[in-house]
Amino acid sequence: MTDFRQKALDYHALPKPGKISVEISKPAETAKDLALAYSPGVAEPVREIAADPNNAYKYTGKGNLVAVITNGTAILGLGNLGPLASKPVMEGKALLFKRFANIDSVDIEVKHRTTEEFIQVVAAIADTFGGINLEDIKAPECFEIEKALIERCNVPVFHDDQHGTAIVTAAGLINSLEVQGKDITHAQIVCMGAGAAAVACMELLIKCGAQRENIYMLDRNGVIHTRRDDLNEYKTLFANNTDKRTLEDVITGADVFVGVSGPDVLPAEAVALMADKPVIFACSNPDPEIKPELAHSVRQDLIMGTGRSDYPNQVNNVLCFPFIFRGALDVRASSINDEMKVAAVDAIRGLAKEPVPQEVLVAAGVESLEFGKDYVIPKPMDPRLLPRVARAVAVAAVESGVAGIELPENYMLD
Amino acid sequence: MTDFRQKALDYHALPKPGKISVEISKPAETAKDLALAYSPGVAEPVREIAADPNNAYKYTGKGNLVAVITNGTAILGLGNLGPLASKPVMEGKALLFKRFANIDSVDIEVKHRTTEEFIQVVAAIADTFGGINLEDIKAPECFEIEKALIERCNVPVFHDDQHGTAIVTAAGLINSLEVQGKDITHAQIVCMGAGAAAVACMELLIKCGAQRENIYMLDRNGVIHTRRDDLNEYKTLFANNTDKRTLEDVITGADVFVGVSGPDVLPAEAVALMADKPVIFACSNPDPEIKPELAHSVRQDLIMGTGRSDYPNQVNNVLCFPFIFRGALDVRASSINDEMKVAAVDAIRGLAKEPVPQEVLVAAGVESLEFGKDYVIPKPMDPRLLPRVARAVAVAAVESGVAGIELPENYMLD
Repeated sequence: MTDFRQKALDYHALPKPGKISVEISKPAETAKDLALAYSPGVAEPVREIAADPNNAYKYTGKGNLVAVITNGTAILGLGNLGPLASKPVMEGKALLFKRFANIDSVDIEVKHRTTEEFIQVVAAIADTFGGINLEDIKAPECFEIEKALIERCNVPVFHDDQHGTAIVTAAGLINSLEVQGKDITHAQIVCMGAGAAAVACMELLIKCGAQRENIYMLDRNGVIHTRRDDLNEYKTLFANNTDKRTLEDVITGADVFVGVSGPDVLPAEAVALMADKPVIFACSNPDPEIKPELAHSVRQDLIMGTGRSDYPNQVNNVLCFPFIFRGALDVRASSINDEMKVAAVDAIRGLAKEPVPQEVLVAAGVESLEFGKDYVIPKPMDPRLLPRVARAVAVAAVESGVAGIELPENYMLD
Repeated sequence: MTDFRQKALDYHALPKPGKISVEISKPAETAKDLALAYSPGVAEPVREIAADPNNAYKYTGKGNLVAVITNGTAILGLGNLGPLASKPVMEGKALLFKRFANIDSVDIEVKHRTTEEFIQVVAAIADTFGGINLEDIKAPECFEIEKALIERCNVPVFHDDQHGTAIVTAAGLINSLEVQGKDITHAQIVCMGAGAAAVACMELLIKCGAQRENIYMLDRNGVIHTRRDDLNEYKTLFANNTDKRTLEDVITGADVFVGVSGPDVLPAEAVALMADKPVIFACSNPDPEIKPELAHSVRQDLIMGTGRSDYPNQVNNVLCFPFIFRGALDVRASSINDEMKVAAVDAIRGLAKEPVPQEVLVAAGVESLEFGKDYVIPKPMDPRLLPRVARAVAVAAVESGVAGIELPENYMLD
């Protein structure tokens, strides 16, 4: 067993199993305390909520509570290992919600026979929470699940593997294009992979200005085009009316390559065919679609991002999901809509252009960070992400009409 | 608004809404910490659990996690106010689990259309938890729900309104009979009420030695007897082959009255008809079936218990549920069976006969407590309940063959 493997197991097992706990947040020592917390005092908030459901936000933890829910069908890169095996990941996500945005979060692993049953279970328990973060659910079912739950739930539902990835990737990509002196509206984009993250990334890039006809998506069978008859409805949205069939066909002259597929699928020869000043986001983790060293050896004019923390420009969902939920919860948004996602992209992009505080440099273990080819996205440990992204998201929720309350005064302003 | 009412609302609302939170229990400050807690380290426990589901107890919080689940159909004495209104009660229960037995507990409120749907939802999410505490579900549906979930879940399922109440009531009643010099096997018992708690109480008394034919249960329509045709299957179990029809008929000569119905339904005249040295447990809360002052004014030879903390002999579920789950979790019991319930009764009974430590007297605000007519049940704040009840339950689980692991060495011994 490797040292890291043993360390990871020990971390989870010792001194007690797991990594989150439930704690009491009000006085609960004396009989008098307990008469307020439980019988007979608890009857008072019950009556208030029965009279007006909004009072649940006033008297219970609902407004700061996010459920991390999965069916275990696509756990990390490990595949369909079932709901119980996903529990450490879901508890880990709950830990990140707390660590980065002080959100109370509990994990729910759902045994399911059909997609409809999973939807029904989540919809039935949804009112317990202020928001629902779907996690590690395989495509294409994840699209149907998210769509149905958004319709059926009164609280925001967000599939992080789609939209968290999309938001951070879009922020990094658009900043990269800016550094390269290019514009997203004209960029030729190749997307290797056609799963949940790929579809969400491309849809969000389009909302940020990319042209659908400039996007070439590839799955196992090559370029997705209008004459293929093996496409699900989500891939069909990206079917390009083109004669191009291979990676080589589409990468030639491309400005952007986004990899959300698997290790080492982008050969150096392909990188050589890209346009001047290309951008590659190779997000397969831990092994990217092309090793950064190899890519840079072919193209000195390249900007590259990966999912790894040991290279520049790490695409890490933690840059987004804690803060998008923080903002959504704080204005009681009924959903997380496109306006809020684009606001998150812009806030993340903007932060990368600001001077970096010393504490962030220390946490990142570097001497300096300046907006440019090796720094197009903020670092995960940057404490400014919370106020910037949460505020941008909350403002967008209010302005787009999905907020349940007004923006709190001076919300997240320093 | 009364002072207490305002205090109860403020307690729930200030300084932050709710009374429980989720906290991080492992190091999570640095990027290195997070690489263990989440990607890539988290893949290791995922693989271990995929290989053996029991490893969920080793690497996640499952083994110390209880879900408090309701459909909101019978909230306290307030009735069917729907799932969301019950959230303060469920969070309160979670608070009590933590306060008394250090169990992590989360509340789940389930919207449901049918009983079958509720069962399906709970069964689907059950593996997330180490145990399930059902709460505030109305009769008779609660019986079917509990039965189905016990069959379908791998973890213990316990409807506290039934069995918690039954265990504490049985402990107090049998101790009362002992003080009165009587034996449960010969006691004539009147049970006013035929809901969830009533049925569970009487079933447990039978397991503790009471004779079914000595029990007279009454519902809205009077004595439940074999010639009635309006009985559900649960009441039918208590249909007595008798000509007695009224409370007066059955209370005459009765040794025990158990009230699990509503305020002031037991008149003083009825108490006068009871046998020598009677026992009355009037559990309706906050207003008992007869006021203790009134009952005692009729019968000086009476032992009486209520649900109230301001009279002697308080029947309070918190004497049982945190500890029965503690014991069940600690030996990974697959269910909470009758042997474990009877063991809990015996442990609670036994503790009432021991000398009371000073700290318990102080918390109870009394000078002394000695086993006898005014002290037949331990006080809720007695810290000895945890080790005594949890150990008794865990031992019973092991001996009755439902434990998943052996009894830990020196488990809960001082």
